[in-house]
Amino acid sequence: QFRAEFLELHPYDQARIFEGLEVDVRMQIYTYLSPEEVADVMEHIDYEDIEPFFSEMDPRFAAQVFAEMSTDDAVDIFNELDKDKVASFLTIMDNEAAQEIKDLLHYEEKTAGSIMTTEFVVVKANMTIKQAMVHLRTEAPDAETIYYTYVIDEDKRLVGVISLRDLIISEEDWMISDVMNERVVSVSVGEDQEEVARMVRDYDFLALPVVDFQNHLLGIITVDDIMDVMEEEASDDYSKLAAVSDVDSPDENAFASAKKRLPWLVILLFLGSLTASLIGRFEETLDKVAILAVFIPLIAGMAGNTGTQALAVAVRGIATGEIDKQGKWKMMFREAGTGLITGVSCGLLITLIVYFWQGNFFLGLLVGVSILLTLIVATLAGSLVPLIMHRFNIDPAVASGPFITTINDIISILIYFGMATAFMNLLI
Amino acid sequence: QFRAEFLELHPYDQARIFEGLEVDVRMQIYTYLSPEEVADVMEHIDYEDIEPFFSEMDPRFAAQVFAEMSTDDAVDIFNELDKDKVASFLTIMDNEAAQEIKDLLHYEEKTAGSIMTTEFVVVKANMTIKQAMVHLRTEAPDAETIYYTYVIDEDKRLVGVISLRDLIISEEDWMISDVMNERVVSVSVGEDQEEVARMVRDYDFLALPVVDFQNHLLGIITVDDIMDVMEEEASDDYSKLAAVSDVDSPDENAFASAKKRLPWLVILLFLGSLTASLIGRFEETLDKVAILAVFIPLIAGMAGNTGTQALAVAVRGIATGEIDKQGKWKMMFREAGTGLITGVSCGLLITLIVYFWQGNFFLGLLVGVSILLTLIVATLAGSLVPLIMHRFNIDPAVASGPFITTINDIISILIYFGMATAFMNLLI
Ligand SMILES: [Mg+2]
Ligand SMILES: [Mg+2]
Ligand SMILES: [Mg+2]
Ligand SMILES: [Mg+2]
Ligand SMILES: [Mg+2]
Ligand SMILES: [Mg+2]
Ligand SMILES: [Mg+2]
Ligand SMILES: [Mg+2]
Ligand SMILES: [Mg+2]
Ligand SMILES: [Mg+2]
Ligand SMILES: [Mg+2]
Ligand SMILES: [Mg+2]
Ligand SMILES: [Mg+2]
Repeated sequence: QFRAEFLELHPYDQARIFEGLEVDVRMQIYTYLSPEEVADVMEHIDYEDIEPFFSEMDPRFAAQVFAEMSTDDAVDIFNELDKDKVASFLTIMDNEAAQEIKDLLHYEEKTAGSIMTTEFVVVKANMTIKQAMVHLRTEAPDAETIYYTYVIDEDKRLVGVISLRDLIISEEDWMISDVMNERVVSVSVGEDQEEVARMVRDYDFLALPVVDFQNHLLGIITVDDIMDVMEEEASDDYSKLAAVSDVDSPDENAFASAKKRLPWLVILLFLGSLTASLIGRFEETLDKVAILAVFIPLIAGMAGNTGTQALAVAVRGIATGEIDKQGKWKMMFREAGTGLITGVSCGLLITLIVYFWQGNFFLGLLVGVSILLTLIVATLAGSLVPLIMHRFNIDPAVASGPFITTINDIISILIYFGMATAFMNLLI
Repeated sequence: QFRAEFLELHPYDQARIFEGLEVDVRMQIYTYLSPEEVADVMEHIDYEDIEPFFSEMDPRFAAQVFAEMSTDDAVDIFNELDKDKVASFLTIMDNEAAQEIKDLLHYEEKTAGSIMTTEFVVVKANMTIKQAMVHLRTEAPDAETIYYTYVIDEDKRLVGVISLRDLIISEEDWMISDVMNERVVSVSVGEDQEEVARMVRDYDFLALPVVDFQNHLLGIITVDDIMDVMEEEASDDYSKLAAVSDVDSPDENAFASAKKRLPWLVILLFLGSLTASLIGRFEETLDKVAILAVFIPLIAGMAGNTGTQALAVAVRGIATGEIDKQGKWKMMFREAGTGLITGVSCGLLITLIVYFWQGNFFLGLLVGVSILLTLIVATLAGSLVPLIMHRFNIDPAVASGPFITTINDIISILIYFGMATAFMNLLI
């Protein structure tokens, strides 16, 4: 009845239905389904929302579910649970499964080790295709993927890879060593997950083996997890550009979301106060020519806009590795040129606008030249800041848009009021 | 010699080497390698950079290379070539290959149809597993993936799917109809590629079938192309937040990059001039209390920052579908709350800062209350603008950070100078 129909669905859809059920129906589900079937559902629930489900299960049943899950997914959940719970689940679980999870829990966040899973299929080079296929069939139910089989030597070192595509078009009596690809692309266990994602995307792999420094095969990373990494990294860069700690999970209350934004806002408020005190030093100039104040947001705004543009281009260039390839000087040179071109265009335009609006040519020229200089400097600042951060191994994406904008506010105000003060006699 | 060693490399690495070669060496490569081998290399070259390579090949050879490429990749390149060239290649190519490509060229950009390929494997439901495996082996060299086989009826309608994993663990004399999964998840040919990517990621598919409105199987979309779509869409959202037409391909000159930024800057310049003329209306107020000017960048800056934060959260919420689920009113209510909390915190802080710095309590209060109101309104504006755009089916991501920032500049200036003018007598 329900069981049969539910199991016909894709686990993703099962998980969506499961999340919508009341607690008493869920308790029934745990008795209707096997630990393996529940594990398939759990693998498709956001690991941040999963804690209550494991808490309401019988601990023994929960431990069995964990044992049936892919180790990478179990580890993701264990990382969200508190230490006592993790320890108690690990003691109930059978030794082998518990040990695998314990090993994986040690790897640092956002490295290859933290996203790999241990359910891979291995064969020896001296097996025949037929033997390998028999082995593959027995491993198939538990393996994370059977489309790539890895070949290891006696010391468990990775020596080759063979795809199921190549396996099924080979003759049964051929040897693995004859058909395997010996140029295996692998990543080391400490590699940054962003770099791992880039490799999988470039090479169009369905899985990538993870090795230690002696080339021992430790795990594999499958393409479905790579897609999640890509989404996570993209969302991360996006959040940083906008200066919010975390742009996702909108199902929270106002306090939680204020908490994510307030730290940035307070920092920016102090930077803004600095700008205010800077303008304060030009109070005398302002007293004489009050009209100057009118163009402050325009000039500061343009500085912020062009800075954000340059920043975004530089951060992406660093992320894609393009900038390392081309050299930083070439990039700075191009940004200077870009600043000059946009500066001249916008400067001329605003000179004309101000001249016709205020009928004051010198004021127009002052605003125009300020825009020109501001755009050049702000464009350079927008690309220089992330480059410097990259140089010191800081993630350049933390140089957010609002941060660069506020820096450029200051630069532009100095240029504008500096020039106004210097050429005061022409303006009055 | 060279040929054997080159072909041992992964096509991605072959492509990297190939791109680094001089034209005369490339000409030799075209004679050493078969069209199929060249096709594998071409599939791993950025389709924007590929035009010169096809132009330098013998047209007949080029046509053969196109015929050997995956149709989705061939179509991507044809979309970059000019119409005459496309037509001439299509006439040299053999009829069947040419027709497939012509069909694919018709689909609208960024839909499922534009990223699907036609090299899929199909079987009939009344075949045995053994027959299906024999068929699969013959199709394997040309198929884009053999890990999913689709089952169609006499009218070519999609009726089932079976994975190679299930095929190899089934008995040879079973029928396809007994083992196939009849609940096939498919997308319609006009579906947005972003939605397609979301489905592949949610369901962890390696490929997804594309059907027309009568459920005829038209093509498949493979996970490697989905990763490219994800990267493209992420980069697109990122560019828009920063108001640059295209944040990638940094190997260009200053003119090209100025061209991508200038249109935005000119629009923002006009918006900025509007802000200036708004402040101009308060010239009288400014003349009396010049110190007011000092806080313009601070207030406008904070409005811009909080607006960008709210914008980013809203755009992501719309993109992930979270906001449709929760309802817009709930979101606006939460944003109002967030604005209130951040506004009260920052407002109090700046009141104290200004009071201790300038020794003028009313000035402090004016700035503080302005920040409070500004943060509430700007936060609401930052989330309302993308929601309205979404409502009218405009991609909310075009409401970029700089755009929202400039809008919020205007709002904040009106609040600040409006209050200053109203309570002028307290300030002097
Ligand atoms: Mg399982
Ligand atoms: Mg994981
Ligand atoms: Mg990283
Ligand atoms: Mg790729
Ligand atoms: Mg996994
Ligand atoms: Mg990153
Ligand atoms: Mg491809
Ligand atoms: Mg091919
Ligand atoms: Mg494509
Ligand atoms: Mg779209
Ligand atoms: Mg997934
Ligand atoms: Mg493809
Ligand atoms: Mg989008």
